[in-house]
Amino acid sequence: MAADGIASEQTAREEALTAQVVASFSGTEDARLRFVLERLVEHLHGFVRDVRLTEAEWNAAIAFLTRVGDITTPVRQEFVLLSDVLGISMQTVAVNNEAYRDATEATVFGPFFVGDAPRIENGGDIGGGAAGEPAWVEGTVRDVDGRPVQNARIEVWEADEEGMYDVQHDDGRVYGRAQLSSDADGGYRFWGLFPTPYPIPFDGPVGDLLRAAGRSPWRASHLHFMVSAEGYRTLVTHIFVRGDELLERDSVFGVKESLVHDWVHHPAGAPTPDGREVDGGWASTRFDIVLAPARVAGDGGAVA
Amino acid sequence: MAADGIASEQTAREEALTAQVVASFSGTEDARLRFVLERLVEHLHGFVRDVRLTEAEWNAAIAFLTRVGDITTPVRQEFVLLSDVLGISMQTVAVNNEAYRDATEATVFGPFFVGDAPRIENGGDIGGGAAGEPAWVEGTVRDVDGRPVQNARIEVWEADEEGMYDVQHDDGRVYGRAQLSSDADGGYRFWGLFPTPYPIPFDGPVGDLLRAAGRSPWRASHLHFMVSAEGYRTLVTHIFVRGDELLERDSVFGVKESLVHDWVHHPAGAPTPDGREVDGGWASTRFDIVLAPARVAGDGGAVA
Ligand SMILES: [Fe+2]
Ligand SMILES: [Fe+2]
Repeated sequence: MAADGIASEQTAREEALTAQVVASFSGTEDARLRFVLERLVEHLHGFVRDVRLTEAEWNAAIAFLTRVGDITTPVRQEFVLLSDVLGISMQTVAVNNEAYRDATEATVFGPFFVGDAPRIENGGDIGGGAAGEPAWVEGTVRDVDGRPVQNARIEVWEADEEGMYDVQHDDGRVYGRAQLSSDADGGYRFWGLFPTPYPIPFDGPVGDLLRAAGRSPWRASHLHFMVSAEGYRTLVTHIFVRGDELLERDSVFGVKESLVHDWVHHPAGAPTPDGREVDGGWASTRFDIVLAPARVAGDGGAVA
Repeated sequence: MAADGIASEQTAREEALTAQVVASFSGTEDARLRFVLERLVEHLHGFVRDVRLTEAEWNAAIAFLTRVGDITTPVRQEFVLLSDVLGISMQTVAVNNEAYRDATEATVFGPFFVGDAPRIENGGDIGGGAAGEPAWVEGTVRDVDGRPVQNARIEVWEADEEGMYDVQHDDGRVYGRAQLSSDADGGYRFWGLFPTPYPIPFDGPVGDLLRAAGRSPWRASHLHFMVSAEGYRTLVTHIFVRGDELLERDSVFGVKESLVHDWVHHPAGAPTPDGREVDGGWASTRFDIVLAPARVAGDGGAVA
């Protein structure tokens, strides 16, 4: 081991280097960019120093990021997957959707949203002919004082029973997605599919990372919601299924206890809420949504 | 602003998320990998929380990394450039080459090293016909107790007066690089070229980052050394030129005061140390190298 005097010379060298790199950003015109870059440098240098990163590990990190870049295409975003499995995406969601009274919690946006989905009336079907157990979903949209929010735009999307979203096929088919509006009482209701689990793509470097860590690529079963209304913070969230064994190990850390819902499975022939005839059994759940005011930090927007 | 109770709920959510992500790596078989990933998660989450990263900024970061991946090829390593301009490469060098008595300081390896360079005798010429002011470089290789290290392998490489390394041309030419050995007294000497500055590639996203920060892509003029000998820590370093205006703003933070050397410029016709005839003026400097024992942390290896 080095003597104290040498250890402190070493510490001084490392700290001086970090300070020098931080100072190099002092001419950044955009004050926010300057702040972000300065803090990035401090945190990354802190990481290198804390773990005493070896040169072999540095080389491995460069090779890993190079592979992430190599597999990334317009339809395969491995950098997003990396952010997801390190919980960076979810931490960004947390920071941008601050806890506010009993406002519904946000979660990850995911890569499968498509704007301008088919419009349906309340009580309509988002399935588009996809295979899966029919599921009735209903609830209300309210503000934090319990007042109904009418005409809120509710966009919903989900995978079929194979765990595939429509956009994962390349034949242009549309299923498992729609947009509808809350009614005068803030109510909404639609027929969808009981959610199924699916893995994030795991044939690339992020999959290798998960394997090395003994982690699963599976996402807990979920149904996506994006709810927006004038004057309110846009809510991007999912609902999950109580009892799903994947809740404890969702690969992207999207699960919040408050978003785990009870679903009821009804036997074949049981009467449906709107009198619709269903082949076989069907499921149902309730999701009451509470929107924070728009002035609260974050717009719940676009973290994929 | 949120009331205290809400702020603490928010802090609790953010901390719980980080803890959950850290815990997800508990099954990592390789204990060192587990430790590195856990600390990486803590530092990256700390960054997101400290700067309150917006979702627009997260999107910009993903787009930036995607561009870094897109421009990277086997001969253009933009991830290495990014590591370099953020001082990560140099901090890794610092961590792996701990201060030890008066051992010569290390600096970045750079992307232009080639193994198995032409062997020359002491007093030989590394220029290979490249354009530039001839420069005589001599010194000794010693240990920290001042004992000569004989037969040390000394690899040297440098750019020509245009700031180009031989490997940056695609015609296979070899210039500005050689390997030689220290003699029985630890001495070495060779003819090279007076060092010239050059920019790192700045036509990609890293160049855009430097521009946004008002930073220059230029590297201070330097001559690379790698010195290895059985029983000693391999030294990867440069020597710089006192008075070079780029010393204060080297784009990759490679400059250490201890590596800045006085160079003497001799007029045309001045007698040379070895009697060699030179057209026009020539330069000279002295670089006495001190090697740390191999048992000291780091092998001075391969950070590009
Ligand atoms: Fe999803
Ligand atoms: Fe260089």
